[in-house]
Amino acid sequence: MIIQSDILKSWVRDVFMSKGMCFAHATQCAEVLILADLRGIDSHGVARLSGYVRLIDKGRITVNPTLAIERETPSTATLNAGGAIGLVSAHHAMNIAIEKATTCGSGWVAISNSNHFGIAAYHAMMALEHDMIGFAITNASPLVTPANGAERMLGTNPISVAIPAGKEPAFVLDMATSAASNGKLEIAERKEVAIPEGWLIDKEGNSSQDPTELKKGGMVLTLGSDLDHGSYKGYGLSAFVDIFSGVLSGANYGPWVPPFVSFLDPLPNLPGEGIGHFVGAWRVDGFRDVDAFKSNMDNWIQRFRNTKPIHPSTPVIIPGDPERKLHAERIVSGIPLIDKVVADLKTVAEQTRVNWPEA
Amino acid sequence: MIIQSDILKSWVRDVFMSKGMCFAHATQCAEVLILADLRGIDSHGVARLSGYVRLIDKGRITVNPTLAIERETPSTATLNAGGAIGLVSAHHAMNIAIEKATTCGSGWVAISNSNHFGIAAYHAMMALEHDMIGFAITNASPLVTPANGAERMLGTNPISVAIPAGKEPAFVLDMATSAASNGKLEIAERKEVAIPEGWLIDKEGNSSQDPTELKKGGMVLTLGSDLDHGSYKGYGLSAFVDIFSGVLSGANYGPWVPPFVSFLDPLPNLPGEGIGHFVGAWRVDGFRDVDAFKSNMDNWIQRFRNTKPIHPSTPVIIPGDPERKLHAERIVSGIPLIDKVVADLKTVAEQTRVNWPEA
Repeated sequence: MIIQSDILKSWVRDVFMSKGMCFAHATQCAEVLILADLRGIDSHGVARLSGYVRLIDKGRITVNPTLAIERETPSTATLNAGGAIGLVSAHHAMNIAIEKATTCGSGWVAISNSNHFGIAAYHAMMALEHDMIGFAITNASPLVTPANGAERMLGTNPISVAIPAGKEPAFVLDMATSAASNGKLEIAERKEVAIPEGWLIDKEGNSSQDPTELKKGGMVLTLGSDLDHGSYKGYGLSAFVDIFSGVLSGANYGPWVPPFVSFLDPLPNLPGEGIGHFVGAWRVDGFRDVDAFKSNMDNWIQRFRNTKPIHPSTPVIIPGDPERKLHAERIVSGIPLIDKVVADLKTVAEQTRVNWPEA
Repeated sequence: MIIQSDILKSWVRDVFMSKGMCFAHATQCAEVLILADLRGIDSHGVARLSGYVRLIDKGRITVNPTLAIERETPSTATLNAGGAIGLVSAHHAMNIAIEKATTCGSGWVAISNSNHFGIAAYHAMMALEHDMIGFAITNASPLVTPANGAERMLGTNPISVAIPAGKEPAFVLDMATSAASNGKLEIAERKEVAIPEGWLIDKEGNSSQDPTELKKGGMVLTLGSDLDHGSYKGYGLSAFVDIFSGVLSGANYGPWVPPFVSFLDPLPNLPGEGIGHFVGAWRVDGFRDVDAFKSNMDNWIQRFRNTKPIHPSTPVIIPGDPERKLHAERIVSGIPLIDKVVADLKTVAEQTRVNWPEA
């Protein structure tokens, strides 16, 4: 089915409110999830709603939490999110980072005691309208093995950087540090097709092209896939994300990051609180005249679009292009939902007694 | 031959001084190059000395430059390095970043009008003794093609992050954002061995395993190697490095970054000045008690070392481990130099009339 984003957004907000969440937080949650669907990151949109609801039901997400700054300097802070849903806490933290950047050029907030924050790009892109560069990273449930390893130690640990331009649209990088994202693996599993070598190993550490191995204890490889192609670099990037999100904030890290699925309990003797994120903003005019910067960014973008392509039919694109194009389409034509997700949302509707819009 | 690092360092310093460089800058240059050799990054150590000397002779590196802060806020600054060698300007900028971090929690300096800065880890690691996390990136001469492209648009654009620990040694990531580093390609070319698929394409855009294709107009691929394995992510990271180093600072970017080799002239109508870097530091206690952080970092490192390995003979390591081990060895036993580099250094010795230590 295809559904208009506004209708879906109101319904998602009402679902969160039915769980006791205040209007402002519920609206915020709906904003992040719907933006994911609009941008084509379907794995991180309403497909995750039932997962969040189950975590609320289990008491592993606190609605209406106390978000407390535990420590700060003029350009840094640590936020204890009080068990908040990450869709709310990262947004809150990014506002603090932008405020600090306004005052002193840059602002950085490490967040502990939080939960999954949706698409990283949502939070990084908050900086753009302030003529700032935004940065957002998060750790996540362990699914990825470090180079040489055969154990789930890291999440898909994304990095997002959003950089404003002038006449051209902003540069928006949002990438998992694993060889393949969760979304791509889910699609392959649903379609029952073989995946490329270099995405997965089975639980013994053997290369596998069967996406269902992940449910049998297999693991995702880091960006680079094997040592020859730099898997230790993907591991290094993922580790950097984990340390900033988990260790620097006082959240959990590595194999201790609590699982997103509610049927798996967190490990005992956790070294920190909840899941962690790290967000920040640099003011462009902390470095350079904004107009000069934007004019050079436009030049950068145009020059890179004009890179000599291998095949003229597949030109070089700019990070964020595919998502922006889908956004422009879906904001008009609506968000397509696959049957499995519709069924899942209808179950949420029944359980929460928030009428599914098409019912 | 094998040479003690102190002897080599003094000689390198004297070579730079023979070109009119002041004692402090010449010492600084020698420090960075020798640290590269000690850490086993032989491609970025004294093997590059003759290249720097030729750039000085051609007037493309200014000795004793004026390093001027062009703009600043409490936590940010832009440094025009006045044509300085990057080995000096990045060190200078990192000191400013550390000073700003001391005052307000974090510090960021974009550097324009500079030249190649050696190993990124040198600059990032400067933060460690201050209980800060260091960050250093730079753009570099175009050699790498964006995903889908067949044109040299980016350098190997490294990212370094240095994070202090307690009893454990620091976490030091220093990685090229390309599928293979310059150093690895040089070694393959010297040994005349085939390289893995996924490192290079020839000038037509065809996959190649011949390392000499690079001299015939070929290009290096980004981390991820192909679209299926996330080459667009390596491109995105490399682009992020280029934009921060080049566009944000007012230096050149993309295909306009001046070549390191003196026999190639910079392109006409450059959009900026020289090569650019971007360095920064976050104070650990801007986020968390230093002892608590270090204790968790030790736990992080120990847990990751104990990851279940695929093969017990190749355990999971921590970024920086191999370089630190080589450093410990070479500081005692000396730095091994291959014949080609010794011959190159002896030519420098003759031209500068600074006696080669073993002559």
